[in-house]
Amino acid sequence: MYTRLREHIEKVVPLTDEEFAFISKHFNYRKVKKHQYLIQEGDTTVYSYFVMTGLLKLSHTDANDKEHVLHFATEDWWVSDYQSYFHKTKATMSLDCLEDAEVLYISLEDDQQLHAALPKIEHFFLRKSHLSYIASQQRILSLLSTSAKERYEQFLRQYPTLLQRVNKTLIASYLGVSRETLSRLSS
Amino acid sequence: MYTRLREHIEKVVPLTDEEFAFISKHFNYRKVKKHQYLIQEGDTTVYSYFVMTGLLKLSHTDANDKEHVLHFATEDWWVSDYQSYFHKTKATMSLDCLEDAEVLYISLEDDQQLHAALPKIEHFFLRKSHLSYIASQQRILSLLSTSAKERYEQFLRQYPTLLQRVNKTLIASYLGVSRETLSRLSS
Repeated sequence: MYTRLREHIEKVVPLTDEEFAFISKHFNYRKVKKHQYLIQEGDTTVYSYFVMTGLLKLSHTDANDKEHVLHFATEDWWVSDYQSYFHKTKATMSLDCLEDAEVLYISLEDDQQLHAALPKIEHFFLRKSHLSYIASQQRILSLLSTSAKERYEQFLRQYPTLLQRVNKTLIASYLGVSRETLSRLSS
Repeated sequence: MYTRLREHIEKVVPLTDEEFAFISKHFNYRKVKKHQYLIQEGDTTVYSYFVMTGLLKLSHTDANDKEHVLHFATEDWWVSDYQSYFHKTKATMSLDCLEDAEVLYISLEDDQQLHAALPKIEHFFLRKSHLSYIASQQRILSLLSTSAKERYEQFLRQYPTLLQRVNKTLIASYLGVSRETLSRLSS
């Protein structure tokens, strides 16, 4: 069941069977159905999730009840409300399932124990963290500098398979454009 | 000269004198004047910078010659076009000085050697990386969900001293609002 996690980590750092057994002990497995929530805004205990199968959505709902999609997370993604996770503050984001999903999850305490005991896992997470940061920088730049049309075309290039898996209202929210604008662009 | 870097790292991990001497060897020092560039779009060799004094701006200029500010970097910030830095691709961002500045800089090769030889530095950079990622997530959310007025007020709360140090045109670019909108908000 944890093979996917091992393959994922070993793309960056090789592991012995003992090391992987030790890593596995820090994670828990959960199977969730479409529409279920893994994190709800206001939650006080937040885990970090590794997606094995399925599709999740990380979003924030504002005071006017409008939902803003931070990102979608599919196979091999790490996802959480990381502000809440690392700072032990109340969740300000929700994580829910757009498809049935299987995830592994870890608490901050287990995460920290794992890092302290196995420095090579820090090397792995540092690499992942760099990639996430680069992707965030590109997203910020895209929100600042590109038109709705360019953003939609970028999305198609970056995530060609998501178009079939996510409804247009959510894609519009992710792109920061209105549903009407997206319909015009994608017709 | 490197004391500031040591204090900065020791907020996360304690260092022996030998360890800090080893870290220092991997960095170079540079003094730069206002208006000088540390990275120009198209550069093929990009370093990662630690700001000791002064104020830098990381930005991207689009095909219509419009500048978009990714962020400002002042004392104790790490800054670079990290896509270019980590992937060894041509820079798509510029890093220039809004004030005279003193920086320490490191190449990716030295960075990697340092990490391989001193795992505790990975712990430090992982922590920094988490904080940067959280800040990016908040910025994305802010660009997606808040009005120009809210964004301006957030900026004032987060960076109260930058208002005196950065001109309004650049703040407008950072916030993704027009210069006219910003004048209305800040008058």
